[in-house]
Amino acid sequence: MNEVIELLQSHRSIRKFTDQKIPRDLFLELIRAGQSAATSNHVQAYSIIHVRNQANREKIAELAGGQKYIADCSDFLVFCGDMKRPTDSAERAGADVIRGMTEQFLVASVDTALMAQNVVIAAESAGLGICYIGGIRNNPAEISELLKLPEHVFPVFGLCLGYPDQDPNVKPRLPVESILKEDYYREDEAMVDGFDETMRDYYGQRTGGTKDTNWSKQLSPLFNAKLRPHMREFLVKRGFELK
Amino acid sequence: MNEVIELLQSHRSIRKFTDQKIPRDLFLELIRAGQSAATSNHVQAYSIIHVRNQANREKIAELAGGQKYIADCSDFLVFCGDMKRPTDSAERAGADVIRGMTEQFLVASVDTALMAQNVVIAAESAGLGICYIGGIRNNPAEISELLKLPEHVFPVFGLCLGYPDQDPNVKPRLPVESILKEDYYREDEAMVDGFDETMRDYYGQRTGGTKDTNWSKQLSPLFNAKLRPHMREFLVKRGFELK
Repeated sequence: MNEVIELLQSHRSIRKFTDQKIPRDLFLELIRAGQSAATSNHVQAYSIIHVRNQANREKIAELAGGQKYIADCSDFLVFCGDMKRPTDSAERAGADVIRGMTEQFLVASVDTALMAQNVVIAAESAGLGICYIGGIRNNPAEISELLKLPEHVFPVFGLCLGYPDQDPNVKPRLPVESILKEDYYREDEAMVDGFDETMRDYYGQRTGGTKDTNWSKQLSPLFNAKLRPHMREFLVKRGFELK
Repeated sequence: MNEVIELLQSHRSIRKFTDQKIPRDLFLELIRAGQSAATSNHVQAYSIIHVRNQANREKIAELAGGQKYIADCSDFLVFCGDMKRPTDSAERAGADVIRGMTEQFLVASVDTALMAQNVVIAAESAGLGICYIGGIRNNPAEISELLKLPEHVFPVFGLCLGYPDQDPNVKPRLPVESILKEDYYREDEAMVDGFDETMRDYYGQRTGGTKDTNWSKQLSPLFNAKLRPHMREFLVKRGFELK
């Protein structure tokens, strides 16, 4: 196993950072590394808002459900799917542009995620820690307003970057045999049962035996309610009708 | 700039592969590296179909618009968003599960993309070349049938992996100043104009001056028509009503 693969396999989220700031040169190299990721038809359907205004960082920390490290980390980024730039550019080049397709929403989301993951790997290779913030989708309209996002641009997730001030364990993942399927999709209930045991041990050890739960139980509240039910209406208002 | 960042910044798609096969041990390390990526609330909402059946690879190559390297590369993978496993597991744990939310579709798409990009970085670190195949969304229903995907599982993209038999240049990207915005979204039309010139030079050089185009013009046919207009109906049929 080479060092890059070792680096990738040692990922864990960091939620506590030292006061050290990321040098500007390094920061820009991370973003360039992000841009080097593959992009669907070269559309590069993303923009990053680098939130430097401290009051806005504190507001976002609150809107994301009280995630203090958004305000405390060295640099906080909001990764946005951006279909405005490519469609506006095509329009200026003479195209009779159609917007709001489901496929465009998917392309922008995937392009953004590939780019962000490159930023993350670059950051971790330089000794930084990261934490993705899906919680910005708790209040996407407020955050879009705060960041003055125009139509056809939407926040996908946030990202905290900084020097780690904690050293958490790597969290277990599903057995490779369950997610990797040969030729056809196959059910993997028995492997999930095994993974539930793995996670029961993990939570038990982490809490000194006080937390009796497993993977399936942990997921229950997430699917027992409408997950972020405002998302569809929010996206439609941003110009993604999901046609 | 460290070696990992250099590796990330040197990415280009590979569409011609040697006959050399990827050793099984390395292949599994790539998938494990993929699984190590961050995942929203630990849902791991993805499955990979490793298409080894040669007849199916040839069918997919055709369904994706005649992309021969799907049949020729060492290993071809279809990355699927998988909300079946986490929601079924939560249901078995007693949850009264709600499916089909727009947010669930977004979580699965992002989880899948982060995981895939880790596989890609791991592969490139081992001297392999890759090519993402968005073209599998040209005919997602046929491909889902071929791979026996159940409800709540959908193909996001394919990935060709193998040893490169070509050495293409790195394709230019938008200026970092256009995609990285300080505190608020700002228009970047002038920077796009500059990038159009960069891409005009790039296409001119690549074709010995015979191709007079630029970024905006290249995007025009993509947005001048309904991009993959079947996607919404396809997703609804797979159980993603995008509520």
